[in-house]
Formats: sequence, structure tokens, C-alpha cells
Amino acid sequence: MTTFTSDVFDVETIELAGTTESIVRGGRHLFGRLPAALAGVRRIGVLGWGPQGRAQALNLRDSLAGTGIGVTVGLRPGSASVADAEANGFRRADGTLGDWLAVAADSDLVLLLVSDAAQAARYREIFAALRPGSTLGVSHGFLAGHLANEGADWPAGISVIAVCPKGMGDSVRRLYRQGAEIDGAGINASFAVVADHDGHATDRALGWSVGLGSPYTFRTTLDDERRSDLVGERAILLGGVHGIVESLHHRYRLAGATPAEAYDRACATITGPVARTISRSGLAAVRADLPAADRAVFDRAYAATYRPCRELVAELYDEVADGTELRSVVLAGRRLAHTPLRPVGGSAMWTGPRAATGRTDPFTAGVFVAAMVAQIDVLAEHGHAWSEIVNESVIEAVDSLLPYMRARDVSYMVDNCSMTARLGARKWGPRFAAALDQLAFPAADGIEPLDPAPLAAFADHPVHAVLARLAPLRPPVDISV
Amino acid sequence: MTTFTSDVFDVETIELAGTTESIVRGGRHLFGRLPAALAGVRRIGVLGWGPQGRAQALNLRDSLAGTGIGVTVGLRPGSASVADAEANGFRRADGTLGDWLAVAADSDLVLLLVSDAAQAARYREIFAALRPGSTLGVSHGFLAGHLANEGADWPAGISVIAVCPKGMGDSVRRLYRQGAEIDGAGINASFAVVADHDGHATDRALGWSVGLGSPYTFRTTLDDERRSDLVGERAILLGGVHGIVESLHHRYRLAGATPAEAYDRACATITGPVARTISRSGLAAVRADLPAADRAVFDRAYAATYRPCRELVAELYDEVADGTELRSVVLAGRRLAHTPLRPVGGSAMWTGPRAATGRTDPFTAGVFVAAMVAQIDVLAEHGHAWSEIVNESVIEAVDSLLPYMRARDVSYMVDNCSMTARLGARKWGPRFAAALDQLAFPAADGIEPLDPAPLAAFADHPVHAVLARLAPLRPPVDISV
Repeated sequence: MTTFTSDVFDVETIELAGTTESIVRGGRHLFGRLPAALAGVRRIGVLGWGPQGRAQALNLRDSLAGTGIGVTVGLRPGSASVADAEANGFRRADGTLGDWLAVAADSDLVLLLVSDAAQAARYREIFAALRPGSTLGVSHGFLAGHLANEGADWPAGISVIAVCPKGMGDSVRRLYRQGAEIDGAGINASFAVVADHDGHATDRALGWSVGLGSPYTFRTTLDDERRSDLVGERAILLGGVHGIVESLHHRYRLAGATPAEAYDRACATITGPVARTISRSGLAAVRADLPAADRAVFDRAYAATYRPCRELVAELYDEVADGTELRSVVLAGRRLAHTPLRPVGGSAMWTGPRAATGRTDPFTAGVFVAAMVAQIDVLAEHGHAWSEIVNESVIEAVDSLLPYMRARDVSYMVDNCSMTARLGARKWGPRFAAALDQLAFPAADGIEPLDPAPLAAFADHPVHAVLARLAPLRPPVDISV
Repeated sequence: MTTFTSDVFDVETIELAGTTESIVRGGRHLFGRLPAALAGVRRIGVLGWGPQGRAQALNLRDSLAGTGIGVTVGLRPGSASVADAEANGFRRADGTLGDWLAVAADSDLVLLLVSDAAQAARYREIFAALRPGSTLGVSHGFLAGHLANEGADWPAGISVIAVCPKGMGDSVRRLYRQGAEIDGAGINASFAVVADHDGHATDRALGWSVGLGSPYTFRTTLDDERRSDLVGERAILLGGVHGIVESLHHRYRLAGATPAEAYDRACATITGPVARTISRSGLAAVRADLPAADRAVFDRAYAATYRPCRELVAELYDEVADGTELRSVVLAGRRLAHTPLRPVGGSAMWTGPRAATGRTDPFTAGVFVAAMVAQIDVLAEHGHAWSEIVNESVIEAVDSLLPYMRARDVSYMVDNCSMTARLGARKWGPRFAAALDQLAFPAADGIEPLDPAPLAAFADHPVHAVLARLAPLRPPVDISV
């Protein structure tokens, strides 16, 4: 499911670690082809005004300006987002803002971007509102997993597609705007075709993705997308990084670092120099760029961290694949109706003094890179496409989330992402912290020689060539946050 | 489901916080009634030789000596436990040790005490082996939950009962032996009747429980038992206490305590004086016995801890009730076939120097008691019987597990209990640590006044009267570990 053809866009074939993928590169110069890709679509209804709905509605409206294809935002009655949607030019008065079910009924392409909780609670109404022959789009696999857990089906007679930007909504909008100056700046996306009733589903998905500003679009299945998306946000993209920086902060404080130094070494190292190095030069460069003495520290941290994190991500993958993790989210939704989540940002790490010297702590770097490679290896073991693996494990981290965390804080991100991600980060972040504190750090500090296998595997890892092949597919632009 | 009648034993009625429960007191002087209670049973087959199987086989053999009711141990072919069973007098030569399926087929009462993983994988064979009209017994609710998850039923034509000692297998045996000198020393147990084909299931369950040495036996349903058992071991009995002591140790170390002092304050306080005070004098006494200045520290810790722990236990309860938690255990079983669990005892807390002065750290005491009351309140909210609530939240902790943890270590317990409990402690322990570190400690250290409601509720809590009523039901004996 990694190759495809298109009647509208040029499809390139790339080789990644011995596998073949089709991709479509994006860019503003392709917006002229959007009417052909979206043939038969007069109106796109974007349901929801969370970060992803907001970004997609704005990007699509800009990309489709002058084509005669309209973008209408649909919100639930009483939605608190009406004011912001109006302020951004979606107005009841001109019919570009309306009730979500009415918008669903009036649109040819309906993008279901409401919260996961709303999707779980209301999908029957939405399905019932859809016009026969129209196309339903989702931007991640939550609903597919929920339908499977419920034993329910997608609506009959409707084409179903997915376009899944590999970055948070805010990044989808910001990089699109930066793309006004640097053509191709944006967030990579995967697409999937679940049901194709008129033979045009693939081009419709590609048009949607190009219209969002995706530098390149690759193919997946909705099931693979769901698994990799949930695993990623619970591990290296969000939950894992939260657990990692909290446990490293403890470690450095106990070893005598001041709060500011500990913050710098545990957190700013990752969100700053490590993220930047990976983004520009790949994973191997994090180690290679260190002085020789620091490389030994990196190696010790890497060797001690890899196995506990690999086993933890394997557990996480099983829970996600089985549907157990989504069941938890649905259960949590019921509790949240009367008990809101408490913010996680009160711990000493986020309330104390900070420094950000720009220096790379080699121990932190070894821990972080090992956790990232652990996630890569679990996804590879389960047969995910390499584009999906590296976008979900590396590119989304270093080009979208970590720069935000640098600007806003890791704990801020944990408290301000989608509810599904927030819940997952709360569940799995502490597991990463415990795995480091109870397993990795004692091993790193022990007198016994560490297992050399993880480092040997890192040296020869196929991900290095994959990242090198994919890096030129996007313009070298740093997100402005 | 908290009242019952018996043809064999004297049933007492007790009032607990406005509810009524029937109970049967145990003791050696009642062993003469066991043949009447176990009418129709010539042979009891105990399948499995884990701590619970071992303890129950030994206790029942001792209690039934001279009655003509035999106890036979059934083990899987190639079981590593054969040698220990033989060393304890269960011998192939005299027919008191045999293949588990053969023993199941030859017994009138079959106690299924193999590991949860073996129950999940092999229950069909065991059910098929049972003799029509015989009785199947389990000692916790795992299999009920697994059957529900699988959409499977208990075997037809078989009576199904449960007797669930509220303590680990080792305690069931040790306190029984102490009961040779102090009649009635033992571990309280709940019982449940799932299917009763001959009208004698209740007395058979009561006979089994009295034969184990239970000081008193109360009634529950297998579903309530499953929920409270899984919640308890993941929260205050094991997982929660592990997370609590780890996070407190971090806290005290960061505040300047030496490793030994931090150990004393974080851990030895709980496993020593706090456990002993609760066991002898109840929960309120932990606070009341403190000097006034320490009471203010206790209050601050309690007020800050209660809500985060209450919300965490509510989440845990939902996951258990939904079957999600058991699905995780079954998924883990597949991974464990090739990747064993790593021990958690490598962290600084368990490998560094220790002290155990016998002093009560008031902050630790406030945190621990608040977490315990949080569990009590969640179980009460879900309608569990008070005997079940306090046995699963208080008595099992202070009379069985914490004394073991004092002798052997909290981390040792986490690594050496049942696989279901070990997995659960690994999942939920870090959640407790994070809830304290990110929510409770910042609140306790904050300058804002804390919510007075939890402390007011503690002062008037019905659990104090319940504990006072239940305390005299067991002889005042400290377990020897």
C-alpha cells in the first residue's frame, strides 16, 4: 500500500531501505491543478475548529482562492469557536460558516476534524447527514479504531479518504504561511483511501494534501496511520519526551546541578541543539558532532536506554494495535465530563529557573536518540512504510513539535494538544520516566560493560540513509514559532 | 449480595456504615465442621503451586487431617514445582500429586490456582476435564473477567465458587501456622457463589475458607472481587505504594536528605510505624498520634494528595471495570514469552544506604493515608461491600503486604508477586509517582491555601467506625516474616 498512480499529479518513486514508495511533491506552483484533482467538488466542509480544523480550513481557502471551490466551516450549535472562525473570515452571513450537520449535508468533501471525543459520540449523526456520493475525509485514524471497537462500519455509498499531516495544526498553518516565501514549506502528510466509489478518491486525497501545503505526500493505510500516530504521540513526539526530560532533570539535580543547569541539560539540549542537528544532518550527526570524550558518554546512555525503551514502545504498540489504548480514551471522555484534567506543568522542572546555553549534553542526547530509534525499530518491525516511520518518529519531532516545545515548554505541549494525545502522554510519559530511572540509569551508572548490540545497530541503521533520502524533499526552512 | 445463610456455620450479622453484612468467623475449633460443610467432597484438587496454590494446599491438608477428605496437588507436565511439592509431602507415589488435568478429573472440588496466564491459555482444557456435578473454585476474579472479554461461559453442570484470601499466598500460610498458637490468626477472605447446582455451594465455599484459616469470611460477587482485587494491587497494595515511595525518596533527596534518611522517611515510615499504627489503632490514629506541629505537615500532604490520587484511582477503576486492564495483561503474556520483565529494584532508592529509625515522617504519612482513603472512596462510590473495601484497601496492606515489604523491600514485592500484579504495578506505580510529583507536591509546596474538603471528609470518614468494628474480628497478632 505504498505505491499509487495519479491522473493529476506527477508521482515519483523513491527507494527507502530496500522498499519502494510513491510520493507526490507539493508546492504552490501546483495549486492550479487542484480543480482537476478535486473534480466534482464544489464545496469543502471543514467540521471543527480545533488547531487542525482551523489550519486546514485556512490553508484550503487560501490555496483554492479563485477556483470556485468554496470552503465552509461547520461548528456545533453553541460552539465557543464561532468568534474565532468569524474573525478569520468564515461568516454565517455569506454561508461560509454554519451548523456542522447542515454543512456536512451541503458539502461534496467533508473533512471531519472535530475532537476525537465528538467523533466517538456523534459519528452516527454525521454519517447520516452525508450526501450520497460525497466524500468523507479524516486526518487521523481515531475513528477507524473506534468503529472497529464498536463493530460499526463507515457509511455506505460514501468515499472515505484520509490526509494526515505529520505535525500539529499550528505547524500546518505556520509553515504554510512561510511557504508563501519558500515554495514547498509545510508539513508532510500521509494519505489513505478507505472507500473509493467513483475512482477519484486518490486524486481527491492528493489535492487535499497539496492544498494544505504538504511538501510531500506518501501513502499508508488508515490502520497503519492510526497505530503509528497514537504510538508516536505517546512516545517520542510527546509523552515519551515529557517522561525523558522529567527523569533527566531529577537525575541532574540529584547529581548536584542547579535547577537552571538541570533544565538546560535535560530539556533545552533536546528541544534545541539535538532537534536542530537531527533536522539538518540526521540522527548519526548527533553523535558524530560530539567531542570524543562526550561520545563515550553518549554511547553509555544510548546502550543503557535502548532496550528498556524498545520494550516499552513494544508494549505501547500492542496496546494501540489491540484497541485497548482507544478504549481508555473513550472511558476517559466520560470522566472528563465532570472532572477536567489537571495540568502537568507544576513540577519543579517547569516552575524553577532555566537556562538554554545551546550546548548538547551528551548523556541526554544518548538517551533521547536511543528512545527515538527504539520507536523507529518497533514501527519497522510492524511493517510500517519508511516514510511513515521517519515522519512519525523523527521529522514531526524535530521540525514541528520540539521547536514548539522550545518556545512554549514540553509541559505546555502536554497540556495543550488534542485530548487523545494529552491522555496518552499522561499514561505513557511516567512509564518512560520509570523505565529510565529504574532500568536505564542504573545500567548506565553500573560497573558492568553495557550491551554493545544497540550501538552497533545504530551505526549501521537503515534510518540514516532513509533520512538522507527524504531530507531534500522539503525546503530547508526552520519553523517560526 | 452481602448476606447469606449457612447450614453448618454460625452466621453473624454486622452493621458497617449503615450497611448489613453476614460473616462467618473462623478458627481451628471449627475444623470439626469441615466434613459437614464439604459434604460430598472426598478429594480436593489444588491445581498450581504458586504461592497461593502452595499455601492453600498445605493449609487445607492440615485442616482436613483425619477427616478422610484428601488434598491432591495437580501440576502441569514438566512443572518446575514438582520438587517443592514433593518436599512438602505431596507425592506421586501415594497419589497426592499428579497431572493437573487428571487431578481435575478425579476431584470433587477443584481449586484452580495456576497463574492467570495459564488460566487464560488453558481454561478450555480444564473445563473439559471437570467431572459433571463437581465444583470449581477460583481465588480471584481474573478468569471471570477473561471469560467476559472472550464472550465465553463457565462450564455447564459445574458449581462455581470463589474464596479469595485478602493477602498474598505466603501470608496465608504463615498466619495459618501462627494460628496453631493463636486460634483465629489468618487472612480474611471473601467468597462468592457463581453457580450452585446442588444447593451446597455456599457451605462448600465457607468450608474452604474456614479450612484456609480465615479469621472471618464475608460475601461478595466475583465481579466485585475482580474489580477491587485488581484495583487494590495496582493502587495502595503494591503499584501505588511503589510509586509513592519512589517519588517521596526523590523529593527528600532533592531537599537535602542523605540517601539513608530519604529511605527512612519515604519508605520505612510507611512499612513500619504507619502500617503498625493503622493495624492496631486505625487510620485516624496516624494523624492523632503525631505531635501538633507534625499534624500540620500531615494535613498539608493529605490535602494536596487526596484529589490527584482519587482521580487516578477512578481512572484505574474504569480501566479495570471495562476489561481494558485485563486485556493488557493478556497482551503482555504474549510478549513475556520472549522478553522477560526487567526487575524494578535497580533505582537509587533500593541500591543505596538505608535507615529505619521507626520515626513517622508526617509528610509521608499524609501522602500515604490520603492515597489509601482515595482508594477506599472510589470502591465505596462503586458500591463495594465495606468488608471488601477495607480488606482490599487497609487490612491486606497493613497486616500482609507492608510487613513483607518491610522485611524484603517494596521493589522486591513488585518483582515477586503474581504476573498480573507485577504488570499492573509497572503500569500504575509510575502514574502515582507522576501524580505526586506533578500535582500533589507542587500543591503542598504552594503558597495558596489547600482545599479543606478532603481533610474534613477524613475527620468524619465512615471508614474509622468500620475499621473499629472489624478489628476485633481477628486476633491481635503481627505476622512473622
